[in-house]
Amino acid sequence: MKYDVFAKDCPSRGTLDHLTGRWAVLVLAGLRQGPTRFNALRRRVDGVSEKMLAQTLQALERDGFVHREVLTAMPPCVTYSLTPLGESTADHVQTLIDHLEANMPAVMANRANASR
Amino acid sequence: MKYDVFAKDCPSRGTLDHLTGRWAVLVLAGLRQGPTRFNALRRRVDGVSEKMLAQTLQALERDGFVHREVLTAMPPCVTYSLTPLGESTADHVQTLIDHLEANMPAVMANRANASR
Repeated sequence: MKYDVFAKDCPSRGTLDHLTGRWAVLVLAGLRQGPTRFNALRRRVDGVSEKMLAQTLQALERDGFVHREVLTAMPPCVTYSLTPLGESTADHVQTLIDHLEANMPAVMANRANASR
Repeated sequence: MKYDVFAKDCPSRGTLDHLTGRWAVLVLAGLRQGPTRFNALRRRVDGVSEKMLAQTLQALERDGFVHREVLTAMPPCVTYSLTPLGESTADHVQTLIDHLEANMPAVMANRANASR
């Protein structure tokens, strides 16, 4: 089977939507630093709500980008980390973020022109 | 100024949201084929509504990724194309899409396991 994100009924479209959702991009990039607890990740992804972070992690886990591990300690400790597929994907996402951050001066200049 | 998408008040966050929004990714990748009219783009980005496509193009134009050109013909003809910044960004987006499409078998296998 050939997957094609341009076809609205292709399952890859749904995964692209998750991957590039408002928070998933930041979660993937945020997890590149290594296994992270929920609350630490929430602090890193500034502005995300508990609910949205939980939903985002769930979708990424279901699709195999994120691994959730429960350590049997007292109190129990849950960490999230990238799977190998998540790592390679997060690398591409980070490249896009780096490109965007580097070009923000041009973006800001364009915005200023557009609002004139 | 140092831009940081992880900071919720950084302007780069808003641009990342546009760029990675539900439709922008597909519009950027779709425009890699060259200047395209609105309706042709709408057919290419299967499933997008007129309203959402117009909004997506507007945000991408405002931030300098897309160029809108009105040709004074009869009837008038409007085409959309990538700016140089849009092209380099769309290349990164396409890399992410290629990576995702290539790994969809693994994603589907994960999903099947997750729903057991």
